[in-house]
Formats: sequence, structure tokens, C-alpha cells
Amino acid sequence: MIRHVVLFRFEDSFTPGIERRWRSGLDGLVGSVPGLRSLSVGRDLGGEARSWDCAIVADFDSLSDVAGYATHPLHTPLIALSAPHSRQIASVDFDLPTHRKDSTE
Amino acid sequence: MIRHVVLFRFEDSFTPGIERRWRSGLDGLVGSVPGLRSLSVGRDLGGEARSWDCAIVADFDSLSDVAGYATHPLHTPLIALSAPHSRQIASVDFDLPTHRKDSTE
Repeated sequence: MIRHVVLFRFEDSFTPGIERRWRSGLDGLVGSVPGLRSLSVGRDLGGEARSWDCAIVADFDSLSDVAGYATHPLHTPLIALSAPHSRQIASVDFDLPTHRKDSTE
Repeated sequence: MIRHVVLFRFEDSFTPGIERRWRSGLDGLVGSVPGLRSLSVGRDLGGEARSWDCAIVADFDSLSDVAGYATHPLHTPLIALSAPHSRQIASVDFDLPTHRKDSTE
């Protein structure tokens, strides 16, 4: 499994209206994009000096599924919505071991 | 639930040996830090222009649990290990809806 993490710093031009369309589009991708198992997106609540504005965390079956997502016809319009208003974007795609310790163990 | 996401860009001085100690320490936090439900960490495999080196994604019961984690005695030595070798750190803490659509639905 691959965990795809993207952080965004947005310009003020990224209005709530544009953001709503962007996020409702993201919400519709799971179940439509091959290999996309889950996706979470949200605005920062931490407000620290190092905080950026927003994060996406999406889990995929493989790196090639992440590549397919990048050009998927349901996703590219969302990139077109956010990219013009993104001051900075940073990403990390890392291997997510299928068995991970969580606190219920 | 709060999803705590941190991206790192490391200096070359962050040797594999230091990183192993850092990551084994991180692996030991779940079950010891109050409110920490899960933690995943990994090096970037994507290799894109916008890629940073490493990401942590950790889920907590609340924002105050994230604050407690930041100063927890098991975590602060890990910050001391990585901070001197971190060229840049960015974070987003966002609200993670307890019910999220995933592809099995």
C-alpha cells in the first residue's frame, strides 16, 4: 500500500466557493479511481508557525495507481481548480506496511 | 479524530543510523502516548520535483492529544534527534471525520 500525502499553501484567491467544489470533487474519487482505497482532506487546525493550509492523505494499492490518479479524468479538473491558487505544494508518497500497530493492540 | 501530518526535508547529515533510531522511537509511541491511535512514517518513493523526503501521518483523539504528544517524554528525544538535521518541516493537523468512505463500500 502507498500513502500519498500532499500539503498545500493557498493564495487568498482560493475562495470558499472554489474550495467547496474542489473538496466535493475529491470526496467523489474513492470508488472511481482504480487502486484508490481511501482519501482524507482537511484544513489546518494547528495554527503553528510551520503549519501549511491544507493536507490530503490518500491510500493506494501501488505507486502506479498514484500515477494513474494524477492523470485520471475525474482528478485533473480538480487540479485545474486548485493549482492556480496554490502558492506551494509539497508531497511524499511512502510505503505503508499493511499491518500497522494501532492503539487497540 | 485529528490527523496530524508532518513533512520533512532532511540535510545530508541525517544519516541512516540516526534515522533508524528516530524511526524505531516513533514506532514505539503508539500505545504509550495518550490519545495516539496510529502512526505511519516513511521515505518518499515518488521522486517528483515537489517531493519532500519523509512524512509522518499520526491520528489522535483530539487536538489536545496532539499538543501532549509534542511534549511527551518519549517524543521529545526523537525531536532532538531529527530537528538538527531538518532543513524544513511543514505540518497540517486536520479534522478526520470518524466515518470516511473507503473503496470497500
